[in-house]
Amino acid sequence: MSCMRNIAITLCFDGRRYHGWQCQQNAMTVQQRLEEAIESLTSERVRLTACSRTDAGVHANMFVCNFRTRCTIPTQKLPFALNAKLDGDISVLQAREANAAFNSRFDCVGKEYVYRILNRTFRDPFLCGRAWHYPYGLDIWAMRRAADFIPGRRDFSAFMAQGSSVKTTVRDVKYIEVKKDGDMVDIYVCADGFLYNMVRIITGTLVWAGRGKIAPEYVGDIISAGKRELAGPTAPPDGLYLNRVFYDKLPEKAEISFCED
Amino acid sequence: MSCMRNIAITLCFDGRRYHGWQCQQNAMTVQQRLEEAIESLTSERVRLTACSRTDAGVHANMFVCNFRTRCTIPTQKLPFALNAKLDGDISVLQAREANAAFNSRFDCVGKEYVYRILNRTFRDPFLCGRAWHYPYGLDIWAMRRAADFIPGRRDFSAFMAQGSSVKTTVRDVKYIEVKKDGDMVDIYVCADGFLYNMVRIITGTLVWAGRGKIAPEYVGDIISAGKRELAGPTAPPDGLYLNRVFYDKLPEKAEISFCED
Repeated sequence: MSCMRNIAITLCFDGRRYHGWQCQQNAMTVQQRLEEAIESLTSERVRLTACSRTDAGVHANMFVCNFRTRCTIPTQKLPFALNAKLDGDISVLQAREANAAFNSRFDCVGKEYVYRILNRTFRDPFLCGRAWHYPYGLDIWAMRRAADFIPGRRDFSAFMAQGSSVKTTVRDVKYIEVKKDGDMVDIYVCADGFLYNMVRIITGTLVWAGRGKIAPEYVGDIISAGKRELAGPTAPPDGLYLNRVFYDKLPEKAEISFCED
Repeated sequence: MSCMRNIAITLCFDGRRYHGWQCQQNAMTVQQRLEEAIESLTSERVRLTACSRTDAGVHANMFVCNFRTRCTIPTQKLPFALNAKLDGDISVLQAREANAAFNSRFDCVGKEYVYRILNRTFRDPFLCGRAWHYPYGLDIWAMRRAADFIPGRRDFSAFMAQGSSVKTTVRDVKYIEVKKDGDMVDIYVCADGFLYNMVRIITGTLVWAGRGKIAPEYVGDIISAGKRELAGPTAPPDGLYLNRVFYDKLPEKAEISFCED
């Protein structure tokens, strides 16, 4: 009898057609599609453990999950075999045999999200569902000054969707960077963990600052007050990407080579 | 009574959900969607004239069409009003009042297409339906040497889908440029006109050269022989974009600022 292996998979996906990662009744999810693909390949019902959940319509440039199996397919063949079973909006990039104890959820030390805003008058058909089309002028420097109030280890209740329950609302935000490349404004946020809707609420708040609806300094007060109702609106899921997942240590800054305005 | 205006519209679209530009029975097309949007705005049934047809699944970064109307909506408001009626995968960028004689089809002096190839092992979910995923190694310099045999005013029968009928198979290809930016290989082709499937057959032929299946020099022989069966396969529609449409004169080269390998 073959022994049990712990396979870790790295993938990326366009979340538009999916109701997020996690399996749900009566809704297509990325997890369900991947578990079906694995089952049709290995004839085993597996349950995937994952680095994160994602909401409906949210994307991933990098996503890590793992499962235990007795199947003997060589790991280097798995991405090809799984991609052949999956639709084109999911792409398995890597499979590797992890040590028996590896858990893609609990071993994850942090994540980086990027929120993409298309800031121009007319929408781009190629970014439909993949960026927040925001047609009004944004003061990038005001957004950056506002973002500077966010990093640190603190209580981020103000940036959590109301009604969510969680053991602690303290998170350690490593950095937040507002990049501009032509019409695109990309907000990179890295933290050891995220509260529900945290990046989308941060984005809504920075956009408020960019529009001049709040002073950049006010972001510090919002966090201190810990009141969700003081922060900006929750940005739509369209622009949100899980960008990187970390299992060793968190980086000091975002890894991008965009033009700067 | 208001007088007749000739309105020229510039738009772009993601062609994945459409059976091309031109109206068809029982199939959704971009023309049909735009005519419906205009009708619901003006209460006039209009017929759009266009710079080009496009095949099912083909995209446009720039597309020009025109129609005659008695409606009095200011042209600068038309893009907003039309976009509100259209799905997010079509975007009207501009509307202007053209002179009475302007015809977006017959006045067009040439077009530039770009064909996008994703040249890496695993597919990219964000380019699904938007690039040809070609996982085998390509020799870019062989593709460029092969491309050098194409420009000029000549009979391009070898690059026309079999069974198409046309008055003349002579076209003037101004330039063809093979650009590489990371995993992307983009082929820009500019001509005064194109035969049916011409850019997709040119792409299939250049990919053959890039794979070493034919010598770059052989492309000259293919054109001279005028035999479709000697040329490479027709590349899939996914990677094809109508990129620019010209009404004045054709440019000398492609307008791109990509990294070069």
